[in-house]
Amino acid sequence: MKSLADNASLGERVATGDTRAVARAISKVEDGSQDAAQLMKELFPYTGQGLVIGITGAPGAGKSTLVDKLALLYRGREDRVGIVAVDPSSPFSGGAILGDRIRMQALGLDRGVFIRSMATRGNLGGLARATVDAVSILDAAGYSKVIVETVGVGQDEVEIVKAADVCVVVLVPGMGDDIQAIKAGIMEIGDIFVINKADREGVYATEKELEALLSLASRENGWEPPIIKTIATENKGVVELAAAVQGYRDFHFQTDLGNKRRRAIARWRILELLREKLVSRTLASDSASEKLDRLADEVARRQRDPYSAVEELMSQKSVVSSQ
Amino acid sequence: MKSLADNASLGERVATGDTRAVARAISKVEDGSQDAAQLMKELFPYTGQGLVIGITGAPGAGKSTLVDKLALLYRGREDRVGIVAVDPSSPFSGGAILGDRIRMQALGLDRGVFIRSMATRGNLGGLARATVDAVSILDAAGYSKVIVETVGVGQDEVEIVKAADVCVVVLVPGMGDDIQAIKAGIMEIGDIFVINKADREGVYATEKELEALLSLASRENGWEPPIIKTIATENKGVVELAAAVQGYRDFHFQTDLGNKRRRAIARWRILELLREKLVSRTLASDSASEKLDRLADEVARRQRDPYSAVEELMSQKSVVSSQ
Repeated sequence: MKSLADNASLGERVATGDTRAVARAISKVEDGSQDAAQLMKELFPYTGQGLVIGITGAPGAGKSTLVDKLALLYRGREDRVGIVAVDPSSPFSGGAILGDRIRMQALGLDRGVFIRSMATRGNLGGLARATVDAVSILDAAGYSKVIVETVGVGQDEVEIVKAADVCVVVLVPGMGDDIQAIKAGIMEIGDIFVINKADREGVYATEKELEALLSLASRENGWEPPIIKTIATENKGVVELAAAVQGYRDFHFQTDLGNKRRRAIARWRILELLREKLVSRTLASDSASEKLDRLADEVARRQRDPYSAVEELMSQKSVVSSQ
Repeated sequence: MKSLADNASLGERVATGDTRAVARAISKVEDGSQDAAQLMKELFPYTGQGLVIGITGAPGAGKSTLVDKLALLYRGREDRVGIVAVDPSSPFSGGAILGDRIRMQALGLDRGVFIRSMATRGNLGGLARATVDAVSILDAAGYSKVIVETVGVGQDEVEIVKAADVCVVVLVPGMGDDIQAIKAGIMEIGDIFVINKADREGVYATEKELEALLSLASRENGWEPPIIKTIATENKGVVELAAAVQGYRDFHFQTDLGNKRRRAIARWRILELLREKLVSRTLASDSASEKLDRLADEVARRQRDPYSAVEELMSQKSVVSSQ
């Protein structure tokens, strides 16, 4: 870690890997604070070095344990590891905070690991955008592996994981229903599949079912997603998972389709950000915010419909913020 | 069903319960077509009669079977039943279509039941908004029970279910991890909890764990969420679930907190719609859409950062669409 002058900017301090600066920077993007845009622009030249690994799957699949073991493995190889855990099912903060606390015990004392949980804030959205920004901050801070873990299989969660360089889908044996439920969507985003808790009954059946589903999916990039069996609690299969991640990375960087994927990710990031900025610009003034309250009240009382309420909000003279 | 003149508007035909008109109307809101706003305004006076029941839970919990049995029970009571199933994990259409097809066998021949799956379309978002609009259309068409079912526990999915009059969370035994994973968020949105597959091992433990978690959650409205045990595949516990739904409805309509909830839902609906309209207005022109493509390409090539790309998109002269 380089030492910096006392008057170094937050961005400069993030770029040297200062963990307190990293934490502050992530809070800024999470809060959607006004200077987050400037910070992200400043950090941009430092990004693009780390490998971003997305891990998703149903609740209870053991993702967190798997992520922790993978992080420990990378640490043993001198990688610095950033972990961003998305916990969108806890709009009231409980989940994310508890998750951090439990993890602290295993990894938190290691200064080469940075763990952050992201939870939904308010109803202006922006969780996906904030998460991807947090990943970029860790990347800029020199974490050579950034793992982004999402609970659930919702729309935003899928998008977040799709924005990673490698996408790992975690299943557990005996979830036949589950595989049916998550079929097409998750199947198509997975670059690597993990069957965790592989000491449980039904591993063989789950593997066969998964293979059958994968054989149906058309993959334009010629990659055949490997299926890795793990028992995360016993640290089994984790080396194999890391090898599969590296294998995908090596494969992916050779193909033109890597560019196509990066373009789709870029487009999605721009749209997410645009959506958020447009709404906050429209609601920036006190009067607009009061108008929103009044309109919400009228819609709730069934005095007007939501569509005409939005038209009223949009018809006001647009107050372009100076930010 | 009243018979209407041939020149009746789509909205008028929806309001008489014409199922083909309902299907077309839902397609319009799903596609975000230009005349959807006019249609929703026209239908607004007919809404607010039906009871909207949101059902959520992890994949594999047996939600679809439970919804189907509940629908059959309501049919036996002469209710017309609308079902909107959200399948956001299938951005490439497979899931929703397959889901429709399977259900057709059990319920599809009954003209008193209308089933529709909603899947993510494109990357301009709007799934949550489209789903809530679809629910309103069914409400306006005279379906006295509208069940909205979401796969997964993602952010959008939680919002969709929160917008229902009653929110049912479905769990299965032996998902201790699961309960941990979904804890705070789902616990706080559930008005009624179902432990499905209640013939499985671990029912007692799951029930105790759930009770413990519920006792921790503070509920400002004084309602104590009941826990209903069901075996949906054998149609067990479904009558009790219907009674709990009615019980919550009766309780909820007596309290002032019903108004508070309706205001929060209205606010969320307005914001969802605002977000979508602002983005589509910004990208309405061909030149803006070309600019987005170019900017996405530049970000993908790392020639510029997403934040400055969005500033460029927002700085163009705003082309206010006449819609």
